[in-house]
Amino acid sequence: MNNMNLTMLTDFYEITMANGYFQNGWKDKIAYFDMFFRKVPDNGGFAIMAGVEQVIRYLENLKFSQSDIEYLRRKQFGEDFLEYLMNFKFSCDVWAVPEGTPIFPGEPVVIVRGPVIEAQFIETMILLTVNHQSLIATKANRIVRAAQGREVMEFGSRRAQGYDGAIYGARAAYIGGCVGTACTIAEKEFNIPAIGTMAHSWIQMFPDELESFRMYARTYPDNCTLLVDTYNTLKSGVPNAIRVFNEEIVPRGFRPKGIRIDSGDITYLSKAARKMLDAAGFHDCKIVASNSLDEFIIRDILIEGAKVDLFGVGERLITSRSEPVFGGVYKLVAIEEDGIIIPKIKLSENVGKVTNPCFKQVYRLYDKESSKAIADVLTMHDEVIDENEPYEIFDPEYTWKRKTLTGFRAQKLLVPVFEKGKCVYESPNTQQIKEFCQAQLDTIWDEVKRFENPHKYYVDLSKKLWDEKQGLLQSYSVK
Amino acid sequence: MNNMNLTMLTDFYEITMANGYFQNGWKDKIAYFDMFFRKVPDNGGFAIMAGVEQVIRYLENLKFSQSDIEYLRRKQFGEDFLEYLMNFKFSCDVWAVPEGTPIFPGEPVVIVRGPVIEAQFIETMILLTVNHQSLIATKANRIVRAAQGREVMEFGSRRAQGYDGAIYGARAAYIGGCVGTACTIAEKEFNIPAIGTMAHSWIQMFPDELESFRMYARTYPDNCTLLVDTYNTLKSGVPNAIRVFNEEIVPRGFRPKGIRIDSGDITYLSKAARKMLDAAGFHDCKIVASNSLDEFIIRDILIEGAKVDLFGVGERLITSRSEPVFGGVYKLVAIEEDGIIIPKIKLSENVGKVTNPCFKQVYRLYDKESSKAIADVLTMHDEVIDENEPYEIFDPEYTWKRKTLTGFRAQKLLVPVFEKGKCVYESPNTQQIKEFCQAQLDTIWDEVKRFENPHKYYVDLSKKLWDEKQGLLQSYSVK
Repeated sequence: MNNMNLTMLTDFYEITMANGYFQNGWKDKIAYFDMFFRKVPDNGGFAIMAGVEQVIRYLENLKFSQSDIEYLRRKQFGEDFLEYLMNFKFSCDVWAVPEGTPIFPGEPVVIVRGPVIEAQFIETMILLTVNHQSLIATKANRIVRAAQGREVMEFGSRRAQGYDGAIYGARAAYIGGCVGTACTIAEKEFNIPAIGTMAHSWIQMFPDELESFRMYARTYPDNCTLLVDTYNTLKSGVPNAIRVFNEEIVPRGFRPKGIRIDSGDITYLSKAARKMLDAAGFHDCKIVASNSLDEFIIRDILIEGAKVDLFGVGERLITSRSEPVFGGVYKLVAIEEDGIIIPKIKLSENVGKVTNPCFKQVYRLYDKESSKAIADVLTMHDEVIDENEPYEIFDPEYTWKRKTLTGFRAQKLLVPVFEKGKCVYESPNTQQIKEFCQAQLDTIWDEVKRFENPHKYYVDLSKKLWDEKQGLLQSYSVK
Repeated sequence: MNNMNLTMLTDFYEITMANGYFQNGWKDKIAYFDMFFRKVPDNGGFAIMAGVEQVIRYLENLKFSQSDIEYLRRKQFGEDFLEYLMNFKFSCDVWAVPEGTPIFPGEPVVIVRGPVIEAQFIETMILLTVNHQSLIATKANRIVRAAQGREVMEFGSRRAQGYDGAIYGARAAYIGGCVGTACTIAEKEFNIPAIGTMAHSWIQMFPDELESFRMYARTYPDNCTLLVDTYNTLKSGVPNAIRVFNEEIVPRGFRPKGIRIDSGDITYLSKAARKMLDAAGFHDCKIVASNSLDEFIIRDILIEGAKVDLFGVGERLITSRSEPVFGGVYKLVAIEEDGIIIPKIKLSENVGKVTNPCFKQVYRLYDKESSKAIADVLTMHDEVIDENEPYEIFDPEYTWKRKTLTGFRAQKLLVPVFEKGKCVYESPNTQQIKEFCQAQLDTIWDEVKRFENPHKYYVDLSKKLWDEKQGLLQSYSVK
């Protein structure tokens, strides 16, 4: 979507390493990288995968322009390497978890295989894209769940972290469950419903509130939502709205759409406003609430009985304010030598940071009866899980915690996206991704979707992969 | 910089209002808007203005494309309004505080005057741009101050909220005091020094750490910084680095540049590594630290005596993790009727949210002797502060708190950026803005720059503006 050439949106070390590999004669050396994350934001039970479509766009457009080369020449790279970059053509294989899928810590959500220079080079953009959109999709879904069926609109553009933060943030929020956005360009580009009515300035422009409402109602009689808190919500805003609904909307054969409350005590004001609207015969007039909302405030005001039909959520959604970082990482898991795949592991004094080696696949096992997801299993890439045989899963840390599954359906989570640099995946449109996400979420147990202390979903290693990992750990401890 | 047409990156209500004003015959009605913010992120004493150059680019390119018009036609706007948009030409006056200036709550940092449709339409993008860049510049400056003269590099692209979050975030971080970035495109576009060496994957690619270091040193003998924490920092990484410095760098006539520690206890490891490097005669070899740093961690490890020369700060800088929202707002402050400026005020039950009406200017008063900034004064736009007369400032809330100033220099903070839609301001380049920022910060008392409980800088109203505001408040309370 972005017309700018983003090839150079990369950490500079990707380039120094690329040159180093090139000088070392490793331009065709094959490497495998996994992208995965270690912790769900806000201590939630799962995240939502998003950003694959933009990763694809980026990889399809990967190309060093003449001005990129000139810039790199000033950085003192040699002519042989610059010539290599000039002829650079992406040739890797890429697998990814489809957008909208619930994802869990420790499992690869993107896998890249190919010449190490290429596979390494794309690290920054893959991380940036998937980290950002998964963060916002995940946060949006938390807020949507808190709203318990009421609609949530994304209102955050003005407080987003940059233009793409607003645009792709709106896309991710929609995937995560929002019904629409205030961001116009997001509708134009992604067909995400954009809505909006008026700011306080509209009301201030007129001699008084009543006249400002009247003018708005005459302009949009079929779609009239009035902002009622500019002066005094209950003494002025709601009575003026009701008067204008009666005098300007109903006589024209329409019904009022809603009122919006953007300040004050939403619980109290919405209850009082609901009574006033009902008493005036406008049971069907919706109440929209906005103003620094998030999942915690929404949960609390609904517990208190707030009468809100639609939430507009701004800065705390578009920046994922409570946890604005999705910590996806991109790690080397194998290389090829003479056509043989050699697994690689990164050690760490922090046990949780030891990586899972090998070229892998992820299976999600669904209970055939309930259709609920039981566990994810990381396997070697060519392992097959036979649905007709009992399958034993076990905790990779506490291996005595074992469970034998029967009556399950096993589905590969990672699908091919690029084969030898050619895109082989057609991204669904944003609406389809949103629907897919909802369907996938229906397979996740409520206990995993709980806000506080969610049940930890099983992400296990197959016996074969576990053995490989132990072997590598042993060989390092022997050294 | 971004080639995409961002005209439609606007909240949809800007368009519904525009159409409403158009239908009401107000296409030429003049309005005045102020952008200001209410609270410094992280309870700091000041923020740093950034983003003006990108606001200018946006306004210069404001234009509805044919596809924008077609999209709006599908949204059922009338042909007369669409024709107006097709011929839309920005014609407002804009004033802004130059980038790099320390700014304070409650004072206008951007003022827009012009036809209400235009002046209102640009709200979303002005807020988005200035909010984002000021947020990151302010956060970066906190981190740079914590580093007490040691260099800070911005390393956050992979965790930024979108592509522009990375690119303009790098720009803002540089303005705020970082010495460089890992983001390559930021150097190419803004001439911000980009650096980078190697990831852990570089080391994993080789049979062992020593060989990986050796290969890197041979590739970059004149610029060799080695990542020492892949296996074991003190037992393996630092000894291997020293060996390679001795065997590959020194014999070639160079000195080693540095080592980087990216995990573990930075204080302990950096102290131990410093001793080892010094003992090997590499007193000049720098120690770089990274890994989830922020101003609080940097302050603490320096108190503990960590031997770090250069910090790489990633996700907590590029997202301003501790407070990822800069809450700038855009409020109507006046309209014109028959050529007369009519001030407007927005009331609120929250006293702090009552706006300052009128078309204004902001003066910064500097003490002539110390060159330190004493106070900012909001005045009517055409008020002049006479430096040769004693000037009385007073707290707008507690008006008995008064102070008479002499021996001061008064400088207008807001400078003209657009006159009747034509840009009249030439943005300095990013380096110049960075230097200007540093010079401006030198005028701010240390008490205001303190991390905890900073002294509150005075932002007062002139007597004339205060009287105007009181008059408006009175007239509303009479109603």
